[in-house]
Amino acid sequence: NIFFLHLDKKQMRKKSIHACQSTDKDVIKEAPAENLMTNLSNAYASDLLPSKEGEDLTKCFLLRVVNILLHYIEKTFDVKSKILDFHHPHQLLEGLDGFDLELSDHPESLEQLLVDCTDTLKYGVKTGHPRYFNQLSSGLDVIGLAGEWLTATANTNMFTYEIAPVFTVMETVLLKKMCEIIGWRETEADGIFSPGGSISNLYGILVARYKQYPEIKARGMAVLPCIVLFVSEQGHYSIKKAAATLGIGTDNVIEVKCDERGKMIPAELEKNILQAQRKGQTPFCVVATAGSTVFGAFDPLHDIADICEIHRLWMHVDAAWGGGLLLSRKHSYKLSGIERADSVTWNPHKLMGVPLQCSALLTREKGLLGACNQMQAEYLFQPDKVYNINFDTGDKTVQCGRHVDVFKLWLMWKAKGTYGFEVQIDRYMELAKYFYKVLKKKDNFKLVFDAEPEFTNVCFWYFPPRLKHIPKSFERDQELQKIAPKIKAQMIVEGTVMLSYQPCGDKVNFFRMVFSNPATRQTDVDYLIDEIQRLGKDL
Amino acid sequence: NIFFLHLDKKQMRKKSIHACQSTDKDVIKEAPAENLMTNLSNAYASDLLPSKEGEDLTKCFLLRVVNILLHYIEKTFDVKSKILDFHHPHQLLEGLDGFDLELSDHPESLEQLLVDCTDTLKYGVKTGHPRYFNQLSSGLDVIGLAGEWLTATANTNMFTYEIAPVFTVMETVLLKKMCEIIGWRETEADGIFSPGGSISNLYGILVARYKQYPEIKARGMAVLPCIVLFVSEQGHYSIKKAAATLGIGTDNVIEVKCDERGKMIPAELEKNILQAQRKGQTPFCVVATAGSTVFGAFDPLHDIADICEIHRLWMHVDAAWGGGLLLSRKHSYKLSGIERADSVTWNPHKLMGVPLQCSALLTREKGLLGACNQMQAEYLFQPDKVYNINFDTGDKTVQCGRHVDVFKLWLMWKAKGTYGFEVQIDRYMELAKYFYKVLKKKDNFKLVFDAEPEFTNVCFWYFPPRLKHIPKSFERDQELQKIAPKIKAQMIVEGTVMLSYQPCGDKVNFFRMVFSNPATRQTDVDYLIDEIQRLGKDL
Repeated sequence: NIFFLHLDKKQMRKKSIHACQSTDKDVIKEAPAENLMTNLSNAYASDLLPSKEGEDLTKCFLLRVVNILLHYIEKTFDVKSKILDFHHPHQLLEGLDGFDLELSDHPESLEQLLVDCTDTLKYGVKTGHPRYFNQLSSGLDVIGLAGEWLTATANTNMFTYEIAPVFTVMETVLLKKMCEIIGWRETEADGIFSPGGSISNLYGILVARYKQYPEIKARGMAVLPCIVLFVSEQGHYSIKKAAATLGIGTDNVIEVKCDERGKMIPAELEKNILQAQRKGQTPFCVVATAGSTVFGAFDPLHDIADICEIHRLWMHVDAAWGGGLLLSRKHSYKLSGIERADSVTWNPHKLMGVPLQCSALLTREKGLLGACNQMQAEYLFQPDKVYNINFDTGDKTVQCGRHVDVFKLWLMWKAKGTYGFEVQIDRYMELAKYFYKVLKKKDNFKLVFDAEPEFTNVCFWYFPPRLKHIPKSFERDQELQKIAPKIKAQMIVEGTVMLSYQPCGDKVNFFRMVFSNPATRQTDVDYLIDEIQRLGKDL
Repeated sequence: NIFFLHLDKKQMRKKSIHACQSTDKDVIKEAPAENLMTNLSNAYASDLLPSKEGEDLTKCFLLRVVNILLHYIEKTFDVKSKILDFHHPHQLLEGLDGFDLELSDHPESLEQLLVDCTDTLKYGVKTGHPRYFNQLSSGLDVIGLAGEWLTATANTNMFTYEIAPVFTVMETVLLKKMCEIIGWRETEADGIFSPGGSISNLYGILVARYKQYPEIKARGMAVLPCIVLFVSEQGHYSIKKAAATLGIGTDNVIEVKCDERGKMIPAELEKNILQAQRKGQTPFCVVATAGSTVFGAFDPLHDIADICEIHRLWMHVDAAWGGGLLLSRKHSYKLSGIERADSVTWNPHKLMGVPLQCSALLTREKGLLGACNQMQAEYLFQPDKVYNINFDTGDKTVQCGRHVDVFKLWLMWKAKGTYGFEVQIDRYMELAKYFYKVLKKKDNFKLVFDAEPEFTNVCFWYFPPRLKHIPKSFERDQELQKIAPKIKAQMIVEGTVMLSYQPCGDKVNFFRMVFSNPATRQTDVDYLIDEIQRLGKDL
């Protein structure tokens, strides 16, 4: 629909020179509209900056990209747009309507790249759509997005203050704030941002092991007794992954039984600890969960802390999902006792809505992360630098290079204030309550737990008419097991809504609704219920 | 300088409504220029999308951000701009000129956020500046940047095809291409993108251990013999970090001696392996380095592969830095033998200039990563999905959530073609040769190695006049040790150029020049030499 100016390379160069000579004000006022209309079929990446005279072309290309992104953002928030336009992997691999994923020896024009960008978004999933409920991380925060665009433009690395002065100091500020919110009185709490909750959990267990057995670093597991750790059967699978990776072994992760709501039973923990000791195993760490993935359950942290104190065990709290609730004065009591933890995982990219990835591992004792991980590489961490090298935080992690994950969170905190996060999170809790109440009244839905939700997770089954009146039995459950996947498949194909399901223990496939998407309104909740009934009624 | 329209919130709403009603074409043609002039002092994050009528404000805000970024990009490539405006950590913490890093309970206006963005960039480091030589990752690739902006906008997670259909398939395409370039004939090679080279190296060793001892996953190191691995004394420190993390212990990383160029000596490796066996240790893995961090050395891969074959050891090649050289038909022979490796780390965010983070771990045997890491979490990896679940790659890694690092690389490959990368890399090699030749002629500079560089690293000392004629001695070296840090400190304070230095073994602090920045020209190399002389002559 847009009229494109066709320019050949020579003309492009001339234009660039002209633009360079114009004043800043002119560029800002005039360039965008003009840039958006320029055709780039004869321009290539090699013509962009740092190529000489590439300035105007660079602006033009980036504005064209931004235009595509703005259009996508608009669609994302439009409840009437489809969440996705589903295709199978083999279709994408074979190439769809000229969208060819194969790589070539030769370059494509900038115009073709813009088409590629459009296609990439076209065949993707709009995770910020008001009816996208598929994961704990959802929504598209505009401030966070701006933060990520800036981060990409700054394109630096968190390992030293030298090349990331602002970002490393921001990390310090954020970690301090988060430690305060947890309630650690220590002025010296510590932490690090890592690439996701699984890595943060791994770091927590790594530090726990090091604290108890500092000789591990040099001499390995060979010099340790048979160490074991504990996590509830509803804890995240990353704990087992960490145990496998760290050389502890998944057999040495002891799963503690939960009550009917999915909370760890403290008496079971105590029993498991004593059992392990009798078997000659050496307990060293308990992982409590604050906001479990499926049920949104909060383990009783004070009871667990008591047990950890008695047995002198490290207490790690996996609050990847639930950590954000600390920002709600109304609901933070659900994490009461977290201030007694030795380490905490908290993912701002979940409940707080920060773009992926943004996860923190926090430790109460300062210096442990450094002692555990540092190798003092001389090419990065020179002692004879011009500034206070305590801000060279790279040696506190297993990583060397580290992506800047803090800026978007910092900018969002500035933009919303702590109270802004609170308002958002309290609203999710209200929505969860509303959803729960509506479902409770419907006789073709059944809640997995009858009680009011403690968090934003609401788990439920949908019963098509043919199954509604059949009493629970193995055969009935065999049929019920197939319902959620079939409805989900249909949701994906139609692209109207996205929701997760899973089986759990003796419970056959059920849906997990979860609220963490700021775009979701009450009407979207109503829509979801109608949609499930529409898609499921004849199954 | 720009005239700002002052709008209160009510006016803003009215404006938005108007914009919504206008056609797409109008928005594209008229909005940008107008948006750039709107003052946002009375607008807040809560007014943006998904807020009702937030569409126009969202566009306006994001375009204002992009305007700041475009201005920064322009400055980045301007050789006359400073690379950084240095301040100490305490100055940033205390607040500079109204740039306050502290977080508040209350929100800031969007206008203030724009100021924060400007300040963040102002006090940062321009890693794309033509005279930024500080790290192996440098430069700002405009296509990669566009790719990262799109990635941030799509804001999804690599764990399942379900929510990242295009990106997971792109990962498959890229991994296949990279495996082919390595020279693996297997049609079934495998791999994963990870958050950086250190994690990729860790994954390599993790898979090596699992292949030899699959019982490790469940039972831990307790059931293994005392396993040891080998890496050259010039290998990256992440190997030791990995050994500490994996529970192997740093003592069980045996450092193999290097020749005068920094290459592993195969005879020494053989000797170390036999020694370890005599001591009752069990070798399981050799890490060869293709492009060492400081010297840019390439270990003799064929000789190492021969030894690994004889002793049945896993061969991991850390080509984080050197991997990109495979794209140069002229220079790829330096990695000859890499096709015999079992696993390879290759960071496109280094020599290939992809924005941070972009690192791949590649394995020759398909399925090992999955077998080693999978835990089959039912809430993510449901077996009863509508599509081919082989594309749900999340269980191949230790991570759960995983940032999309592939799109920017894919887009750059489309934009440049394989040959485009080659041209860029060959140019770095030419610049390194030029730099070496110029230094060789200067009697106040001394090369750490006399021979022509094999890679883009060039290590050298600068001798101020007072040290130039003093023969090598302990006392002379004590003085020389202080020269590079002093020059570097001055470089940072003046912001003219950034270059890394380090000591190494018996060699006191020397500079490491490295070429991986596409903006660097020959004149910048000349400038660097002049600048070192200017800053160092009176030291």
